[in-house]
Formats: sequence, structure tokens, C-alpha cells
Amino acid sequence: MAELVLTTFDWVPKMPRGYVRDLRVRWALEEAGLPYRVEGVPFAARDAEHVAHQPFGQVPWLTDGDISMFESGAILLHLGQLSDALLPAEPRRRSEAVQWLFAALNSVEMASLPWALFAFSGDTGDTPGWKRLDDFLKARLGHMEPVLAGREWLAGSFSVADILMADVLRLVDRFDGLTGYPSCRNYMARATARPCFVKAHADQMAHFAAAD
Amino acid sequence: MAELVLTTFDWVPKMPRGYVRDLRVRWALEEAGLPYRVEGVPFAARDAEHVAHQPFGQVPWLTDGDISMFESGAILLHLGQLSDALLPAEPRRRSEAVQWLFAALNSVEMASLPWALFAFSGDTGDTPGWKRLDDFLKARLGHMEPVLAGREWLAGSFSVADILMADVLRLVDRFDGLTGYPSCRNYMARATARPCFVKAHADQMAHFAAAD
Repeated sequence: MAELVLTTFDWVPKMPRGYVRDLRVRWALEEAGLPYRVEGVPFAARDAEHVAHQPFGQVPWLTDGDISMFESGAILLHLGQLSDALLPAEPRRRSEAVQWLFAALNSVEMASLPWALFAFSGDTGDTPGWKRLDDFLKARLGHMEPVLAGREWLAGSFSVADILMADVLRLVDRFDGLTGYPSCRNYMARATARPCFVKAHADQMAHFAAAD
Repeated sequence: MAELVLTTFDWVPKMPRGYVRDLRVRWALEEAGLPYRVEGVPFAARDAEHVAHQPFGQVPWLTDGDISMFESGAILLHLGQLSDALLPAEPRRRSEAVQWLFAALNSVEMASLPWALFAFSGDTGDTPGWKRLDDFLKARLGHMEPVLAGREWLAGSFSVADILMADVLRLVDRFDGLTGYPSCRNYMARATARPCFVKAHADQMAHFAAAD
């Protein structure tokens, strides 16, 4: 098997630490017990080679032999194909996990990330724009609440779908957006209590702190 | 092979017609030449069975034998596994197409859909909120522009990644957001000139019009 190399920034400011998306990949690699190495690219100057690996000038990307992958969703799907600990083998369960993986990104994060952009900027006053984004997010959380009230994990057993959904909900919780959604909040707490999340989070914090 | 059944609403108001996400699935099915049947569920009242198929109370979903799938990204990935016309067979190309499929949803649409929500509501004045979303989208389009200037399709040959990216860009173009991004606009025009898009679009329009 080829060596897995995860590339993230060499340093980021304090604010995004603990939320940079290499965390999702670290978490998945830890859950699967797959060996990997972490490399850093300059945060300050993003050169042509960076953009060749990640066309939006962001992180992370993962190399697996001669394949270089960007997009955390694509990377987690790829890792899921390497380990049953990340994606169930049984076809129906697997299909369910893949659907929830997409739902985390395209149904929940599509609402939560712009909401968090506004929350981060303190632009949460009585404006039609904030209300629209807040309603958009609340509608999605309102649909997640009964789903998560009825199950421990999204697709029968813990999978990459839970890594993405829990990480998406973490950012909402950072700005107190899970008040009123106890099942979402409990689910996120359950996921992030896993030793592999705790290790991945500590590793990311240490990686950035080492460059201060 | 099991019969493929695509479920969408039985009717929607005029405004979203031509943009409901069953279009993405119709387009992919047409490109692959896979036979399918379309069913409608009530737009007005979304019952428990609807939510069992689509937990956010939206459309579309696809059934393939005993598998029922929601999320347009998950459905297109599933269809890609049924046809080389939708996902290249060669592993590196295939991996590239999957990355771009995620990029369309999680890097571009995550910026463009909230932007379109604001544009749709006419909330595009000189406010910090609109400026933030507009800058977010422009940053993403700014990165897509050189990518699309240099290639006909995202991953060597036409794939499900192009269906999603072109459909995402269509909604931006509807609100004149591609001005200043000629390569994005040309790419979208190239994709939507394909006979399978034209048929899928006409079929969606006819489906909703039949219920007026």
C-alpha cells in the first residue's frame, strides 16, 4: 500500500484552529488505523503547485500513491473504500452512509457555513439577510433533530458520514446554534467524545502551535 | 437490472421550474441512456413516507431495486457506477471526476446557493451581509475561471461532475452572476447545449406544466 500523505497549512491564525478541514481527514485516518504523514504548505503564499493540488487554494489534500485528492468529502469517500471502519461493507448500509455523507455537506453545511460566516462577523442583528440564513439553517436542523433522536449513528454503525455531520454541527455549536436541538447536540458530543476525534483535534492544535 | 424510478414533486410554482434538482438526475439518466420512470409526490403536503425517502422533505430521490437514495450528489455518483458515460473507468480520471463532483457541491454551490437566496429576495443592496456572500462566491468563481479556461470538461471527458457544476453555475447565471467570468459562462453554455440537458429540461418543464 502506498504511503498516505495529508497536506494542510504550515500555520493558521488562532481563530480557525481546531476547525481546519484536515481535521476531518485526520479523524478518519485515526478511526481506520491507517498510517499517514502530515505535511505543511505555506499559509501566507499559495503558489502554482498548491493550486495544482487544490484548485481553490485551500487545504487539505491527500496523496495516495500517484493519486492526489482534494475536497474533504471526496477524501473521506476514498478512505472509506480502504476500511470497513469508515464505510459499512453491506451494500444498502454503504449506500445509506454515502447519502448521509452528501447530506452533511450539501444539505446541512450548505446552510451552516454561510450562517457561520455571518455569526463570525457578528452580523446577526435584525436584518432580513441574517433572518433568511438563520431560517435556512433552522429548517435543516429541524429535520435532523428527529433523525438523530432515533439513532446513535447515521447509517447503522459509525462511518465517514458521522465524521462529516458531527464536524459540520461543531461549527454551528461554536456559535450556540444547537440550542433547541438537543439530539443534534448530543450526537455531536457523542461523536467528538471518540478517542480518534480527541487525538485528531489535539494533533491539529499541536501542528499549528509548533509554527507559532 | 432493476427499474430506476425518479421521484420529484407533482407540481411546483413557476419560479423554481427548470431548476428543481430532479433535473440533475434526469440529465444523467439521459446521458447514460438508462431507462427510467418519473413519479410525483405532493408538493403541498409532505407526509411521513416522503420524509422516510428524503429526510429534509425535499426532492428528488431515486429507487434502484431495494435501494432508495436521496441527495443529488449521491444519486449521480450511484449512476456513475452504472455507466462509463457518467464516470470514466480509468482510476485516476475517475478519482478526478469524483473530486470535482464534490467541488461543485461543497466548494461552489455552498457559496452560490446562499448567494442566490439573497439575489432571489432582492436583498442585494449595500449591506455587509450581501457583500460577504458576493465576495465568497466571487472568490470561488475566480478560482474556477482559469480551470475552465484550460479544459472542455472537468475530468478529461464529460462526467457527472460537469452535470453538477454546470447546473450550479446555471443558477448563478440566472441572476447575472457570471458576468466577468467568461470561461465559466462558456462552460455552462457548452454543457447545457447538450441534447440530454435540453431533453431533461423540457421534460421537467412538461412534468410540472401537466399539473397546472
